[in-house]
Amino acid sequence: MQKTIIVGASGYTGAELARILTLHPEFELNGLYVSTQSADANKRISDLYPQLKQLCDLPLLPLPADLSEIAAQAEMVFLATAHEVSHDLAPIFLTHQCKVFDLSGAFRVNKAEFYPQFYGFSHQYPHLLQQAVYGLAEWNTDQIRHTDLVAVAGCYPTVSQLSLKPLIEQDLLDLNQLPIINAVSGVSGAGRKASLTSSFCEVSLNAYGVFNHRHQPEIATHLGTEVIFTPHLGNFKRGILATITAKLKTGVTDQQIRQAYQQAYQGRPLVRVYEQGLPSIKAVEFTPYCDIGFATHNGHIIIVGAEDNLLKGAAAQAVQCANIRFNLDETLGLI
Amino acid sequence: MQKTIIVGASGYTGAELARILTLHPEFELNGLYVSTQSADANKRISDLYPQLKQLCDLPLLPLPADLSEIAAQAEMVFLATAHEVSHDLAPIFLTHQCKVFDLSGAFRVNKAEFYPQFYGFSHQYPHLLQQAVYGLAEWNTDQIRHTDLVAVAGCYPTVSQLSLKPLIEQDLLDLNQLPIINAVSGVSGAGRKASLTSSFCEVSLNAYGVFNHRHQPEIATHLGTEVIFTPHLGNFKRGILATITAKLKTGVTDQQIRQAYQQAYQGRPLVRVYEQGLPSIKAVEFTPYCDIGFATHNGHIIIVGAEDNLLKGAAAQAVQCANIRFNLDETLGLI
Amino acid sequence: MQKTIIVGASGYTGAELARILTLHPEFELNGLYVSTQSADANKRISDLYPQLKQLCDLPLLPLPADLSEIAAQAEMVFLATAHEVSHDLAPIFLTHQCKVFDLSGAFRVNKAEFYPQFYGFSHQYPHLLQQAVYGLAEWNTDQIRHTDLVAVAGCYPTVSQLSLKPLIEQDLLDLNQLPIINAVSGVSGAGRKASLTSSFCEVSLNAYGVFNHRHQPEIATHLGTEVIFTPHLGNFKRGILATITAKLKTGVTDQQIRQAYQQAYQGRPLVRVYEQGLPSIKAVEFTPYCDIGFATHNGHIIIVGAEDNLLKGAAAQAVQCANIRFNLDETLGLI
Amino acid sequence: MQKTIIVGASGYTGAELARILTLHPEFELNGLYVSTQSADANKRISDLYPQLKQLCDLPLLPLPADLSEIAAQAEMVFLATAHEVSHDLAPIFLTHQCKVFDLSGAFRVNKAEFYPQFYGFSHQYPHLLQQAVYGLAEWNTDQIRHTDLVAVAGCYPTVSQLSLKPLIEQDLLDLNQLPIINAVSGVSGAGRKASLTSSFCEVSLNAYGVFNHRHQPEIATHLGTEVIFTPHLGNFKRGILATITAKLKTGVTDQQIRQAYQQAYQGRPLVRVYEQGLPSIKAVEFTPYCDIGFATHNGHIIIVGAEDNLLKGAAAQAVQCANIRFNLDETLGLI
Repeated sequence: MQKTIIVGASGYTGAELARILTLHPEFELNGLYVSTQSADANKRISDLYPQLKQLCDLPLLPLPADLSEIAAQAEMVFLATAHEVSHDLAPIFLTHQCKVFDLSGAFRVNKAEFYPQFYGFSHQYPHLLQQAVYGLAEWNTDQIRHTDLVAVAGCYPTVSQLSLKPLIEQDLLDLNQLPIINAVSGVSGAGRKASLTSSFCEVSLNAYGVFNHRHQPEIATHLGTEVIFTPHLGNFKRGILATITAKLKTGVTDQQIRQAYQQAYQGRPLVRVYEQGLPSIKAVEFTPYCDIGFATHNGHIIIVGAEDNLLKGAAAQAVQCANIRFNLDETLGLI
Repeated sequence: MQKTIIVGASGYTGAELARILTLHPEFELNGLYVSTQSADANKRISDLYPQLKQLCDLPLLPLPADLSEIAAQAEMVFLATAHEVSHDLAPIFLTHQCKVFDLSGAFRVNKAEFYPQFYGFSHQYPHLLQQAVYGLAEWNTDQIRHTDLVAVAGCYPTVSQLSLKPLIEQDLLDLNQLPIINAVSGVSGAGRKASLTSSFCEVSLNAYGVFNHRHQPEIATHLGTEVIFTPHLGNFKRGILATITAKLKTGVTDQQIRQAYQQAYQGRPLVRVYEQGLPSIKAVEFTPYCDIGFATHNGHIIIVGAEDNLLKGAAAQAVQCANIRFNLDETLGLI
Repeated sequence: MQKTIIVGASGYTGAELARILTLHPEFELNGLYVSTQSADANKRISDLYPQLKQLCDLPLLPLPADLSEIAAQAEMVFLATAHEVSHDLAPIFLTHQCKVFDLSGAFRVNKAEFYPQFYGFSHQYPHLLQQAVYGLAEWNTDQIRHTDLVAVAGCYPTVSQLSLKPLIEQDLLDLNQLPIINAVSGVSGAGRKASLTSSFCEVSLNAYGVFNHRHQPEIATHLGTEVIFTPHLGNFKRGILATITAKLKTGVTDQQIRQAYQQAYQGRPLVRVYEQGLPSIKAVEFTPYCDIGFATHNGHIIIVGAEDNLLKGAAAQAVQCANIRFNLDETLGLI
Repeated sequence: MQKTIIVGASGYTGAELARILTLHPEFELNGLYVSTQSADANKRISDLYPQLKQLCDLPLLPLPADLSEIAAQAEMVFLATAHEVSHDLAPIFLTHQCKVFDLSGAFRVNKAEFYPQFYGFSHQYPHLLQQAVYGLAEWNTDQIRHTDLVAVAGCYPTVSQLSLKPLIEQDLLDLNQLPIINAVSGVSGAGRKASLTSSFCEVSLNAYGVFNHRHQPEIATHLGTEVIFTPHLGNFKRGILATITAKLKTGVTDQQIRQAYQQAYQGRPLVRVYEQGLPSIKAVEFTPYCDIGFATHNGHIIIVGAEDNLLKGAAAQAVQCANIRFNLDETLGLI
């Protein structure tokens, strides 16, 4: 049993991690931590999330200034913290030989200049950017197995890349025409906080972050090609549906496309490629899967990808990476 | 054309008032005001409520310390302000000969001792509590016609009293057994503000304010009898559905009940009594009506009442009271 | 007062027409009709739509086989009927000198070969296809004024064309790259009927009709250029949000784009072009407006258009066309 | 491993059973069956429920006229079928020595005269009504252990009885005043079918079955006292919230109430009694728990109970009963 802790356990992703890790047969959840300033400090997590009552009643401990004691007792750490907080905490846990699974954006892009522009802080650990492995589990499996710092992929980037990468790797797309990613996310993507924007009466369906969302460069960097990415907020709690339109190279057949997906995801149970039909939010909510379907016409392809933003887009993929890191079945504790 | 202003125009009720008064054929909306501290001050109301674009693009002016100038130009004032603010503003507008329609709880109960207990402030204007008329439009019509201060009834109290009052007035209920009011309100009832409780992912369906909601004494006072009132928050934006269970006096017939409603609401188009079936939220959302239906069995009655909490439960009833006050058709500008 | 009837009044669009025409100051609603086989025949419309109680309690009369009597008494007819039904009824009402506003797809495309392919029937009235004017109110205003048969534009086509047409007319788009229209519609777009697909528990968010929805050729025909159109079903009742991505011609400026919209919609109050920000569903639901906003970057434009599918996408635009036809203010009865 | 089949596997409850039994460590799901007339016959269950893809792709086999072969291979059968169908099937499976867990109402009330009145059929197996054990798991544990026919409690009756029974058993309520149960159920309670009533645009929030819902006599019979039960349909997919108002016997203290609950549910992990606060739908959706909280005032008690109608109100309780029957931990496969 690998001992593990969660830092930032009071948020939606943290709570999903707590649930998964409580039930995980090979990991032992040893502690939940929140910022010392948090209004939730010292409450039980089940006070915030009543669905966890009895299952996980651990307290949300204020994270001490000196991490050495808690780091000494944990083989692995999940950071469900703000970007700047992860940036500061990860190096400390690494020096204590913890494996770190960071769910923030602090180590996702291996270019220091990316951070001031998109995250508003200057990165202090360029050497860690070198070591960090981007936690897109189905693509970077081997590297994940050998790193101590996994920068778990973002929610939109996960579904976008899982949908597009097989076609790009097999050179099936005409990239002179930029792939267009239209995605709609449930409100939990905005995190657990008091905010007018995510208050019940204000949410309807709208685009946001048009041409300037930080997930666009994350996607483009790891795909190795530019894309147009337009996120939307939808009036549901969980899930992302991404509708992707792209131009195919001349002569590309459905058969080739299907093979590309098969080659990428055969033996990878957490990506489900549809033989027919297209995914919907209800197919993936409360599941660890990313579902992918497609249709073609006249030289264009429309790919629809779907995932639960808190699971395959965050907590479940983090645990999937941890499973890989510890040479376990990648689905352990997830299905 | 009666000139009017709205104070507290940035909230959900204020915005409904702005829409109604803009379109009202006999009232002229002259100004929208918010607290000087408001982050919305000097924005246009349609910046907050895009549905009002073109219809009403008035600015949300910071309310000046000296109200004499704006009061001098308005025959009537709608106060969609916090209870304490209404408490302070109403007397000033009254001294300037404005008719005041207060949508807060500041003048609804004619007992000074009520306010410290339920609203947390000590009432400074007991003489105004004497003058204020409780704005339950179908019941206090004559008094509304002759007052300058209408304390518009609360959202839950409106539907609860409209449902129960005809039966109590006709002495059809056995009040030894307290009427049980279970009501579910849409989230807009909590107002327009950043709050974890009303954030999209936190709302589901739950009871709150059990045995201690301030609308219970408002209902009991004006009904003249105790009730058990249990409010709930539901996962919809607008509307209140109240399911009321009460014991009938021995021998009371459906015919008597129907007559009681008829007598109360004949000629009052904004209360719709169902000949058969029961109201639902969809019957009343975005309408100025309170709908009422009932069923009886074995000496008990279940009454279901429904209204749009922002309209018959707030803005529309306020304008209905204003119509009455100015001897207009009570539905003017509302249908 | 122009006398009017609605055929197909029991559906969502029919009910919106009934509400609007009841309140319209220059039109007089004289009768509601449904198919003789309809289970709703002889019910009152307010039995189906309780929100209409008192406002409109007209019966849903079974449409007689011989239309001459009812046609003789109506100057105008709104057909909210199935495509095949409109196809059969419109010619009859036209021979009785009624002005016909058809909300189905039966006369929208002036090519007889279109109908077997996309609507599954062979069109019997090619001469009427010549006379019919496509009811995209802001664009075909003059022709609408002079026709007796208006084929009111479809819901998706209305928002799509209002968003794209100004840029195409001003030649600002590089159409070698097809405009990509991703749209999400509320469930009311599927009509009022028992259906597993639109049952509450089955609806989440999903694409449908990918590469084969009949609104694609309607849009392409009237725009005069191909587009990729991907409709989605969303978990809300009313409204369509269309996110459109297109390539700009080299050197096109935001200023030119803004002017194109201004030129198209100045003086047309039912299209609201945003100076900043983008529309959302909540901005347009229950309103007669189509809202449009845009952003540009690196030679691409993203346009977001929104409308209430039952209003600007159906009933309100039909009445707008009728207002135009009878030389009234186009917004009469709509705001 | 006990071999099991599900009859009526295409409905919402059937699909939950399929998911639970697939993952259950001691039961082996051997076959899914539907009516031979079902349009879903021979589809895979994951064609209807995409969330089950890969997890459970079993076909929905048409139930053969002769059940002997499939009964011979199953130690246990879950009937998620219509009442009349369960009524006919249960005796057959019982003669083949299967343990039967019936989720319909066919064997819940041990009075033959109940069925014509409330279910519209005459019961042919009064001797089985004697043998059947009412599957309210926390209350009839011992009898469940020794029967071959469990009539799993209904959704509303489960939460209602779990909430009230401890107080009635301890004689804490003044039953001269009938307990008032107001409950709101998600739409999945209506089953998976095309129906206007449960179509997305028709659902809002409304009472139904007032004074005549068949769950009222089920509750009253097993509680041993009359109640007033008013069900409502709410605009959410899963879950029931029951708000129960009752009169306490004179002098009853909160301490006594708390002890009554403790005594009833100590060591029963699937009922969670709140020490403070009240349950909400979000606390129980997608969980196997029934949550209970209460407040008292002036001789009255308000109890709020919540459960997932498809889980503790159906599938999870059925499996809980099966666990009990086979001497397993009652939570096995459920948490």
